[in-house]
Amino acid sequence: MRKTVRRLADDREIIYFDDSATAPARDAVDTRDLPTVQATSEIRRDPLTGEWVAMAAHRQSRTHKPPADLCPLCPSSSDRPSEVPDSSYDVVVFENRFPSFSGHDPVRPATVEDSGLVPVAPGNGRCEVVCFTSDHNSSFAQLSPQRVETVLAAWADRTAELSAMPGVEQVFPFENKGEEIGVTLHHPHGQIYAYPFVTPKTERMIEVACTYYERHGRAVMADVLAAEQRTGTRVVEQGQYWTAFVPAAARWPVHVQVVPHRQVADLTELSTAERAEFAQLYLRVLRRCDGLYGRSLPYIAAWQQAPVHRDREACWLHLELFSVLRAPDKLKYLAGSESGMGVWINDVTPEQIAQRLREAG
Amino acid sequence: MRKTVRRLADDREIIYFDDSATAPARDAVDTRDLPTVQATSEIRRDPLTGEWVAMAAHRQSRTHKPPADLCPLCPSSSDRPSEVPDSSYDVVVFENRFPSFSGHDPVRPATVEDSGLVPVAPGNGRCEVVCFTSDHNSSFAQLSPQRVETVLAAWADRTAELSAMPGVEQVFPFENKGEEIGVTLHHPHGQIYAYPFVTPKTERMIEVACTYYERHGRAVMADVLAAEQRTGTRVVEQGQYWTAFVPAAARWPVHVQVVPHRQVADLTELSTAERAEFAQLYLRVLRRCDGLYGRSLPYIAAWQQAPVHRDREACWLHLELFSVLRAPDKLKYLAGSESGMGVWINDVTPEQIAQRLREAG
Repeated sequence: MRKTVRRLADDREIIYFDDSATAPARDAVDTRDLPTVQATSEIRRDPLTGEWVAMAAHRQSRTHKPPADLCPLCPSSSDRPSEVPDSSYDVVVFENRFPSFSGHDPVRPATVEDSGLVPVAPGNGRCEVVCFTSDHNSSFAQLSPQRVETVLAAWADRTAELSAMPGVEQVFPFENKGEEIGVTLHHPHGQIYAYPFVTPKTERMIEVACTYYERHGRAVMADVLAAEQRTGTRVVEQGQYWTAFVPAAARWPVHVQVVPHRQVADLTELSTAERAEFAQLYLRVLRRCDGLYGRSLPYIAAWQQAPVHRDREACWLHLELFSVLRAPDKLKYLAGSESGMGVWINDVTPEQIAQRLREAG
Repeated sequence: MRKTVRRLADDREIIYFDDSATAPARDAVDTRDLPTVQATSEIRRDPLTGEWVAMAAHRQSRTHKPPADLCPLCPSSSDRPSEVPDSSYDVVVFENRFPSFSGHDPVRPATVEDSGLVPVAPGNGRCEVVCFTSDHNSSFAQLSPQRVETVLAAWADRTAELSAMPGVEQVFPFENKGEEIGVTLHHPHGQIYAYPFVTPKTERMIEVACTYYERHGRAVMADVLAAEQRTGTRVVEQGQYWTAFVPAAARWPVHVQVVPHRQVADLTELSTAERAEFAQLYLRVLRRCDGLYGRSLPYIAAWQQAPVHRDREACWLHLELFSVLRAPDKLKYLAGSESGMGVWINDVTPEQIAQRLREAG
């Protein structure tokens, strides 16, 4: 694996991750005439729920499904410059041109209209795009295991680099896949959000994990993992270092957690052997997902990592993979119960989901 | 207003709420040959987040957008029986034939596969459908103020009745409107869920309200309301008893909270004057929403009520109205950040939303 750091015409960072150390040099220059990114997002804390919400008004004009021959994630050709100046790449990461979070403004204590009620701060942080392959018509499930290891190396590198940036409190690598999730660019890619706060989901998991630890002296994920391995009814893939299972209280019609057997806080702490096995095992899980309905499954894959600066010992890295597709042509909508009350209603049991995924192999 | 309680052929309850005490008698008999409702949902508590999730596998076969002449929510005619036996109605409520929650099984302490990790219980409770008008092609925004008062009376009646049922911990009246929210029946209607637990959203608000009260000796909503009224930048409609404003940390591209000036725990506690003003004010808010993009706005309207048995003094009834539509033809999707981490990114500021709603009047 080889890493090359460059800059785009508007000074955004671009980082090439090549499968092989002997890949061609990544020295192409971005010749476009680009305006400087004007990102002016802010975050506000909801006074009724205590949760941060981001406002990024500049994102309304972002690229919306361009035709394939204008894909900004394909490599550049001489007559068609894209976001990636080089004429080829393996994996490439660059700063999002329409970021939800950016910059490192020092945070001064302030509230909306000085009411004292709604804390407000600049939307510091960083948003990056991760292209998994230069092949526009491929998908993560079609990558080689070696390429998945390069993607893992890129995710780990970005987790380390973004964690070191001032104001970043949590790093979140994820993939949104498919039009049903609202994906506007079809080129196989994911994103990384470096948030200026610890996310509500992680706050909640930390609270539960700490309470469990005080009561039982063990990590809740250790006991969940042991229980899933013992019963096996929800296990989809089992390895030496990882287990993939449908959570016992699955929220989504397709829902899998991919969990390492060893407690690590984030992707930077995985061993070489753990990364190698993840690549193989995750590809098998994704192929089962695509087999489920006989079509490429739209999904969200979300890396649950520990916060950067606190409660790292309470967290257990895992990947959460889920889909809104409840039949080949039917979506699960987040309507009143889910969006209004936070109560998920699943039309299928976790055991049925696991059974179907095992049969889809 | 007159209330008439009847039973459908499969023993489900149906309750007519007529605008006038002199409406025709609601004594029509359901002549259909209906199988008994087979609802076998269960709830499980997610061991990592501590939140209850419902599994209702029997709902997969529910009615999916029938043609208008087979609408189950229209009144019955002699040759076409529907869910409503009578040949007319004003407002009618009946038990959902495909309920996410139903029954009152005594709850025995149990966990999934006896692992001790994932509490499980029958999906006790009740799900009701509320038809706002017999006119298939109408909408809530087109109701008369008198009819909205009948709907309010029905919601309050159901809140009281459902709260009295064994095992019910929270009552949630809501309306999902529009195909973009996944609504399968276009006849103007809402739903009521009687949950066997306090919802995660309400748990969170109670926690924040209690902390705020301990620190300031006041209800957080009282201070939020006062601040919104003082600055006015996010106020959409202002009455003597209610204010409608865009929350200062709005999560959705259209997002309005309709809040009574007096702290009440749920709809049963509203005065006659408060109900009368709500009808007028809410209709004005809905018309502004429909004016926003020059089209009938898809939305979720969610009544935030206190739990039935605890923390009622920490809660402040309000209606939360929001939409996924961020442009006339563009949806906000709940992708990685929202669904994976609980972090909402809004492409518009609350002040812009309020400004546009005021201009749409």
